[in-house]
Amino acid sequence: MENFNFKILKKDKITKARAGVIKTRRGKIETPYFVPVATLGSVRALNRDDLADLGAQCALVNTYHLHLKPGDKIVKKLGGMHKFMNFEKPLFSDSGGFQAFSLGLAREHNIGKIGNFFPEESSSKKTESRFLEKLGVDDGAKKENFTRISDEGIKFKSVYDGSWQFMDAKASMKIQSNLDSDIIMAFDECTSPLSDKDYTATAMRRTHEWAKLSLKYHNKKQALYGIIQGGWFRDLRDESAKFIASLPFDGIAIGGSLGNCKRDMHEILEWVVPKLDEAALRQAQDRPRHLLGIGEVDDIFESVERGIDTFDCVSPTRNARRGSLFLYPESGGRVKNKFRLHIASAKLREDKHPVDPHCACFTCQNHSRAYLRHLYHANELSYYRLATIHNLHFMLDLMGKIRESIKKGRFLALKQKWLNN
Amino acid sequence: MENFNFKILKKDKITKARAGVIKTRRGKIETPYFVPVATLGSVRALNRDDLADLGAQCALVNTYHLHLKPGDKIVKKLGGMHKFMNFEKPLFSDSGGFQAFSLGLAREHNIGKIGNFFPEESSSKKTESRFLEKLGVDDGAKKENFTRISDEGIKFKSVYDGSWQFMDAKASMKIQSNLDSDIIMAFDECTSPLSDKDYTATAMRRTHEWAKLSLKYHNKKQALYGIIQGGWFRDLRDESAKFIASLPFDGIAIGGSLGNCKRDMHEILEWVVPKLDEAALRQAQDRPRHLLGIGEVDDIFESVERGIDTFDCVSPTRNARRGSLFLYPESGGRVKNKFRLHIASAKLREDKHPVDPHCACFTCQNHSRAYLRHLYHANELSYYRLATIHNLHFMLDLMGKIRESIKKGRFLALKQKWLNN
Repeated sequence: MENFNFKILKKDKITKARAGVIKTRRGKIETPYFVPVATLGSVRALNRDDLADLGAQCALVNTYHLHLKPGDKIVKKLGGMHKFMNFEKPLFSDSGGFQAFSLGLAREHNIGKIGNFFPEESSSKKTESRFLEKLGVDDGAKKENFTRISDEGIKFKSVYDGSWQFMDAKASMKIQSNLDSDIIMAFDECTSPLSDKDYTATAMRRTHEWAKLSLKYHNKKQALYGIIQGGWFRDLRDESAKFIASLPFDGIAIGGSLGNCKRDMHEILEWVVPKLDEAALRQAQDRPRHLLGIGEVDDIFESVERGIDTFDCVSPTRNARRGSLFLYPESGGRVKNKFRLHIASAKLREDKHPVDPHCACFTCQNHSRAYLRHLYHANELSYYRLATIHNLHFMLDLMGKIRESIKKGRFLALKQKWLNN
Repeated sequence: MENFNFKILKKDKITKARAGVIKTRRGKIETPYFVPVATLGSVRALNRDDLADLGAQCALVNTYHLHLKPGDKIVKKLGGMHKFMNFEKPLFSDSGGFQAFSLGLAREHNIGKIGNFFPEESSSKKTESRFLEKLGVDDGAKKENFTRISDEGIKFKSVYDGSWQFMDAKASMKIQSNLDSDIIMAFDECTSPLSDKDYTATAMRRTHEWAKLSLKYHNKKQALYGIIQGGWFRDLRDESAKFIASLPFDGIAIGGSLGNCKRDMHEILEWVVPKLDEAALRQAQDRPRHLLGIGEVDDIFESVERGIDTFDCVSPTRNARRGSLFLYPESGGRVKNKFRLHIASAKLREDKHPVDPHCACFTCQNHSRAYLRHLYHANELSYYRLATIHNLHFMLDLMGKIRESIKKGRFLALKQKWLNN
């Protein structure tokens, strides 16, 4: 694609970490990078001035949600997402395929992309049957499955008005074309950590068919990423990585259920990324790699180490709204506390210090923990912006530190400082 | 008081409108001015950078609410409200007396400060008995009265934890001293438009006793305003205006129920302000006059015309959150539409124009009606800030135009342009 390319500036000597630049028609993204999520065309609680102040290089919008609200046709009439939300920088859009999971089995079984049923053990080290025993989840947590999936596409129930909507690869490409985002995703089916191997294989093959259809219906002006599926099954992930990498996508995304625990996710990356390396060598073409929906601090380090370039995740912004604010290692942030301060804590009632004394964000430069705690408990709207600014500043600053460390050959030292302190 | 004074720069030749400057220990306030309300130490949905960008000269915080959350003693420990909320400019605090009404009869009878039962008629033109017929309000709207009022003070039920709290003049002065606001209010009882003359007289006499106690317990570092009560009864308002004006307050506030319709409010001002003028002549001292809790566009013009210097009201910010955004006369703002655009309207779905094309605020400079409508319908947090910035910019800009018009001898022309277009 003419107006899209990826250049690797520096590869780490020991790990698969790499620093690079994605060039899009709307500007560049220095990688590794965490892409802030603006589901409906707004990073929740922030405005365009905040994104500018934070130096956000790009953002990610959601195809399913925007198709329903306000409608991609309206967005098109208004000049596309950039004009609609008044954001000049590159926009990613996901394909809608993630909602096959988030509105489907994720609701039915009340789980996330990483199952976390046997937190100590990797799924690949236990038998499938034992893993699947856990299928009998608490009935109280079950909700209606809002999807019906077939080889033709996905029927989604609208979370806004309850109407049933159909989406297939062609429709997803059309919607993303209407949104006029810069980096778009092939239509896929994201499975659950509770899906068995047969189902995961069926979903993967569908995803592969939809990958070809996505390439067919793609408008050729937007960069298109293929999505690797296959759950936590090694042979499926191998097959999917090889297949997706063989197609002329502009970038590669790794989607789907990532097993039972974080160790599973690491293993999946260790299976997939070498296949992408082989394809890159064969094709003499380095493509950017995006890990969909992941974004805890330790996940970022582990995934960059294993060759991932970009991430997106709602967790930093959602956690901010729920009172979890990031702490740098210098201020007590640890893997054990998930690098988080709980602002609701009674201990902070009279705490005059900023959320993180080592943080340069607007919130920490201007306000105390006591004030943020007060606003949080009072449900003041001003809290959400202050908290979100802090968490997003932290994430983007962390990504800058990671890029710098790779360029200076000190990535593992940085990882050590953050994860083993 | 040493670090407080009020200077009148220009008096309108035809009306009682006047332009002046209130000097406080934390800076000056050019009048007439609309004081943004920051109930719990935050103008709802805005942060300190927004207030700075809007050029807010001051703000008003709430004694009752801050006493309960986070607690005025904690605020004191943290260095007072200015330090707590990180706002350097003058702060008003109300006395808590308004909550005698807002948590009392306002809840019980579901009404505001202006009753609005016979919108066409002034209360003073009809018999009290006819007015009071309306006391039999819809049972469905009745809520529990959260106050118990006696000559000693007011027992309030906490809206946060249901506990009963007692406040009297001494306590109100102590709390406001702990908050360390710059302009504080004497403790008073605000009555309802549905209170009869006997009750209103009783409440007024209590307020007068509490005024003397407020002066007694006042720390002398903060400017203290006395509050005139007396409902919509002329002899009571006369008595209250004379009494409050005779005491050594730094400023005068007009509180309480303001009758049945806007015309009643105008009449009340026409009764009260001449008494204040007489006192000013007698004492050779002009004191600033604050109209408590009023802030519609037409109210501002009518009250400035009748000699009011400052206002506070939650309506511009509350209306913003509820989807009502101000329009300048040039953009279709009229008394009839309350100068408001309803952003939820289906007609705005594809409207590329700013909320108000004649507005210079951040929101109008950056976003379309269609985008704001989308954010509003999606309950996006970013909506609240954008909407509040617009409405507050509008109010503060209007006050600037009013000040300018008085200085240039064109106040009535400006009023004519805004209210009779």
